[in-house]
Amino acid sequence: MSSNGSEAKSGVAVIGLGSMGFGMASSLLRHGHIVSGYDPAPAAIAKLASAGGTSARSPAEAVRGASIVLCVVVNSAQTEAVLFAENGVFPVMAPESVFVSSATMAPTDARRFAARLAERDILYLDAPISGGAAKAATGALTVMASGSTAAFDRAADVLDAISSKVYRLGSEPGIGASVKMINQHLAGVHIAAACEAMALASKLGLDLPTVYEVITASAGNSWMFENRVPHILEGDYRPLSSVEIFVKDLGILQDMARAERYPAPLAAAALQMYLATSGAGMGAEDDASVARTYAALSGAALPAVKSTT
Amino acid sequence: MSSNGSEAKSGVAVIGLGSMGFGMASSLLRHGHIVSGYDPAPAAIAKLASAGGTSARSPAEAVRGASIVLCVVVNSAQTEAVLFAENGVFPVMAPESVFVSSATMAPTDARRFAARLAERDILYLDAPISGGAAKAATGALTVMASGSTAAFDRAADVLDAISSKVYRLGSEPGIGASVKMINQHLAGVHIAAACEAMALASKLGLDLPTVYEVITASAGNSWMFENRVPHILEGDYRPLSSVEIFVKDLGILQDMARAERYPAPLAAAALQMYLATSGAGMGAEDDASVARTYAALSGAALPAVKSTT
Repeated sequence: MSSNGSEAKSGVAVIGLGSMGFGMASSLLRHGHIVSGYDPAPAAIAKLASAGGTSARSPAEAVRGASIVLCVVVNSAQTEAVLFAENGVFPVMAPESVFVSSATMAPTDARRFAARLAERDILYLDAPISGGAAKAATGALTVMASGSTAAFDRAADVLDAISSKVYRLGSEPGIGASVKMINQHLAGVHIAAACEAMALASKLGLDLPTVYEVITASAGNSWMFENRVPHILEGDYRPLSSVEIFVKDLGILQDMARAERYPAPLAAAALQMYLATSGAGMGAEDDASVARTYAALSGAALPAVKSTT
Repeated sequence: MSSNGSEAKSGVAVIGLGSMGFGMASSLLRHGHIVSGYDPAPAAIAKLASAGGTSARSPAEAVRGASIVLCVVVNSAQTEAVLFAENGVFPVMAPESVFVSSATMAPTDARRFAARLAERDILYLDAPISGGAAKAATGALTVMASGSTAAFDRAADVLDAISSKVYRLGSEPGIGASVKMINQHLAGVHIAAACEAMALASKLGLDLPTVYEVITASAGNSWMFENRVPHILEGDYRPLSSVEIFVKDLGILQDMARAERYPAPLAAAALQMYLATSGAGMGAEDDASVARTYAALSGAALPAVKSTT
């Protein structure tokens, strides 16, 4: 459902201009939106200005005149600061405007933010994203969203511009966050399992490129195995997604599971391996670095490390 | 590389006529091989006879006149019995014939069997299979094999008949077993992770068919998630592959990892869940029954159980 080109496009503020936020802002500019943006890094704001957006000196300044605010930060603490810290957006957003929250967070946080915003009649879309920087740049993200029909309708042309698929998961905030956490649960376990299996394969003396070829054609395959194992084979640990992302996301998952009295031993074991990898100094490197922890703990040989942060 | 239709086809003995062995025997018959077979279950032998094969009353009787023996049993203990127990095949196989071993087992067992068979100049192919009963029936298995060039060459038309893909992984027995174990390591973790995540999704109040739709289109997907979660959604726990298979295979994996001084916390956590599921009485049911253990441990509601063993 593309927006009608003859209608005025929504003014959009993008708060957080990392690889995801900048890609989303670029997609919005290509679709004819007026985009203002804020990021604590001056270089990120300058980049937006040179791409045709308006740079702002605070979140509050960015959202003036915007009917839609995309909050593209890392976690609930940063989302809280964007909303409620000094120069935050909560006091200045217009009633009936929409706050689209894309950080991965616990569903309880999403529900809490939505309730606070409702006090000023601001609509909340619980809208985690999936797809990575390349898909953000081309407007091909997947959005896993929940919120009111009014929130979806007002944000429709913005969601169209940034994504190729929007899952409407329900009317209550928290559902989007929950589904994203289930995805992160699986993704985090699968990356750690890929690292555990590949370093063991090396310890057993197997040829790792051959193992990769066989497994990707077999029932042991996963999206993450196929995507991350090449980093190990090439010794390239420049962070496409860092170890700290899964320290955070499996940490949230553990907190949620504990609150639900739900035992999650696989997620727990995977989290320990991300923690060990971060503790050993690789927190900012690619999450496939978990394989280097297995190698260090076992004496398994891996292909030489060629690139890091 | 199909065999030349004008050559005489190898006489083949298939020991073990379960869903995999019978499917392989059927594929061989379709390709014009003379097939004899043995299974401890009289019904299985009768089924082979009605399909055009020759039924035998012991492994030793089945291999008379066969230049290739396919051993399609569950584990190394059964393989050992086929070879060396009373009426076993070791004393009666012809020198220069080939023993093709497809049970999942530790690489040390594969090397030990190969060494014993070499004493009588019998060739050994370490040839675990992947693909399940449906692909066995249509001759479309994947074979992950290692062994001498002579063993591969002599078994070539037999491997052609049963498989769509043969990986030649090296000349030493044990490599095929190792690669299969790496596949089982990943597959076993991925099934348990799928069960852990889906029962948690239910506990969080999510709509499970929607979660399945989103995850299979996202980075959290795995071959096993896509294949097994429908069993949970349909409440169908009739065993396509039973819990006991992964009790066995992750048990072998743990033994191998321990011998290598290799820590494998994800495989260890997954094994505990298969053990709990078997201990609770579901060992013979489909491996997606691990989700029922998570449900029992947490109070999560799953779709009603409609079918079991």
